[in-house]
Parts: sequence; C-alpha cells; structure tokens
Amino acid sequence: MKKSLDLSLYLVTDPQVAEGNSFLEVIEDAVKGGVTLVQLREKDCSSREFYDKALAIKHLLSSYDVPLIINDRLDIALAVDADGLHIGQEDIPYDVARKILGPDKIIGLSVENKTDALRANKLDIDYIGISPVFSTPTKIDTAPALGLEGSRLINSISKHPSVGIGGIHLQNAASIIASGSDGISVVSAIMMAKDPFRAAQELKQIILKAKDYE
Amino acid sequence: MKKSLDLSLYLVTDPQVAEGNSFLEVIEDAVKGGVTLVQLREKDCSSREFYDKALAIKHLLSSYDVPLIINDRLDIALAVDADGLHIGQEDIPYDVARKILGPDKIIGLSVENKTDALRANKLDIDYIGISPVFSTPTKIDTAPALGLEGSRLINSISKHPSVGIGGIHLQNAASIIASGSDGISVVSAIMMAKDPFRAAQELKQIILKAKDYE
Repeated sequence: MKKSLDLSLYLVTDPQVAEGNSFLEVIEDAVKGGVTLVQLREKDCSSREFYDKALAIKHLLSSYDVPLIINDRLDIALAVDADGLHIGQEDIPYDVARKILGPDKIIGLSVENKTDALRANKLDIDYIGISPVFSTPTKIDTAPALGLEGSRLINSISKHPSVGIGGIHLQNAASIIASGSDGISVVSAIMMAKDPFRAAQELKQIILKAKDYE
Repeated sequence: MKKSLDLSLYLVTDPQVAEGNSFLEVIEDAVKGGVTLVQLREKDCSSREFYDKALAIKHLLSSYDVPLIINDRLDIALAVDADGLHIGQEDIPYDVARKILGPDKIIGLSVENKTDALRANKLDIDYIGISPVFSTPTKIDTAPALGLEGSRLINSISKHPSVGIGGIHLQNAASIIASGSDGISVVSAIMMAKDPFRAAQELKQIILKAKDYE
C-alpha cells in the first residue's frame, strides 16, 4: 500500500555533514526533530554504496514511520523496496518509472518552470518539487531560481501537492508555505547543521505555524 | 526467454569514438563485423541520456539478433527490457539483481581475483568477465592486471563461461582464448578504431582461429 504522504518537512540528504556528525545520526536526529519524509540523494558513489546506504536508512526509518524516497535511481528504490522515487527532468521518464514501480509507490517529480508544471498535470505523480525556489550552494539543480513569484505561479496552475526546494532556511521557510506549497525541502539547512535535531524542530514549528495561517 | 549467449567478441561501449565516427554507427559497424554481444557502459551521463542511448541501441541490435547488456544500471536494463545486466564488485549484489530481473535475463559478473571467482561459482550467473587481464587506458577497472597466468588460473577454477577484458587487441586476442576464455571483451580496440567494421572482423577471425586450436 502506498504510504501516506506528509510533505511538511522533506529532508534531501547530502553525503556532507557538519564536522563531528555522522550521516546516519544526522538523519535520525532530523527525523526525531520533525522531518516527515527523507530522500536519499547520492551522485558520486558506486551502486553498491548507494544500495548499502539505502538499506541502512530504510532500517533506521522503519521505526519512525517516515517514508524513504530514492533520488533518480529506480534500481536502488526497487532493490531496497523503498517507499518511492524522486525524478528530475534528466532522469528516467515518469511513465517508465511508474510502470516498473507500480501504483503503490510514491513518485515525485522536479518541475523547474511553468511548462514542466503543465506537463506534470497530465501525470499521476504524487507531488512536485518546485526547484529551485532560491539559489543554493547545494547543486540540487542547474535551472535558474524561480523566486517566490515563480513558486506561487506554479502552485496556482499545478494540480499536485508541492514542496519548494533550493536555498530554504529558517528565515524564508514560511514564505514557501505562503506561496502555496505544502511543505519545504531542505538539504544543507539540516545536513550541515551542528544540531540537526534542533534545526529540524525549528523549521517544523515555522511550517506548522505558517500552515495555520493558510 | 533467455537469449543464447555467444561470448566470442564482446563489445563494451565507451562514449568516446574516433574523430569523424558516430557512436551508433560504430556499434552497428562493429556488429556487422562480427561482434556477438554489446554492453552499454556509461558512467557520466544523466539517467535520461543513458535510457535514450539504451533504447536506441536496443532498436539497432534487434535487427541483428545480438543481445544488449547494460552495465551496472539495473533500472536502465528494466526500463528498456535489455537482454541482461553486467555487474562489477562495486555494483548492486547479484542476488538482488537476479531477484529483480528474473531468471530469463543474462547476468554477468566481473571477477578480479581468485576469491571473486570462487564466490562466483556459488552464483547462478551466466558468465564472468576476467578483469583486467592486461592494463588498459580505458578505466574499466581499478584492480591490478591479472596477466595471462591470472586468466588461466581463474578459468581453471571457474565453472562459468568467461571473457577476458582489459587491454585486449589484435596482437594478444588469441592468448586470451588460449588461457581458457570463451571470448574477448574489448572497448577501445573497436570504439576508437577508424574502421570499426574491419577492427571487429579482424578480431573475430583471430578468435575463431584460436578457438579451432582449442
């Protein structure tokens, strides 16, 4: 069965964490702090390392009922029976991914502009990632930053739930919710935090408060 | 149904081809020249590019009854319904790959030493790639070159059909067959040839002659 989807605080991983922290502990602390969804994103490791990391995170998340989404690599998602897959515009086409994964897995898609959003409306995806809203040091995406206006426009035409991604932190998190998104997606704001538990907790409070205003 | 496997002349692709040649034409010419198996190997492109290339090669090979094997990426193999997958020691574990691909797909495994070969004997794989036999400019593998003695040793203990890979060309192709392998695997000897048809034809003649002596 497809896991229920709470996009409020969506952590996208990066192998780099703050000095003194360990990758798996950062994820566990972040989940304890309120992260609702975790996406494992790896770009430069072997398939075996990706698989081993995915297995370890799946095991970790199973105690917290937080779904695990795999970035790009459909084979890793299948191999560890992850809850879903996130694909970008440069990844395997959506219809091929859905056919292989079946109807019970979450599939999210990055949209970088209005055209992508209109195309996404024709697809049976579970959410869109509006990417990037702000410019970011993490190379999430090479497309130009959309800004809050872009995020608002895409949310107004999209039929799917959405998260904003790219350059999101404590100071601008509420504005993403105000632009019509269901949640925020962060990388460095949590992965690079000295205290990932607190970073997640603070972001979560801001989001819940912003959602109350909506 | 699993395609029948002729390991005689196994082309492993590389995106780089000789000036004036095109990637797909090189593959087609090589197949016309006698290549019996093609492995699509991509390390630095997006999943979408890999998928598109795999689809194009699958279409091309369907007229020649030459199987298409995908290197490492199980998802691409599934997405284009390729004939098989080649995995190395740093890729998804064999048992996971077999479970996902099913019994009707070819799975090959790189072995780099005696220990790998003994472990491979316990697996229901279709062939092993003895890798690398000679040192090679193409980064097929980072393990030390095994030499003909290493190739002979691995063939003597392995229960699987094998190809040698790494630094193989016209001058040493026959020695690989003499060391007990069923075929040779080449990258640059064909991909970088000015005339890939002729390169394949010459290699094929040497292999067939060497096999007659066995």
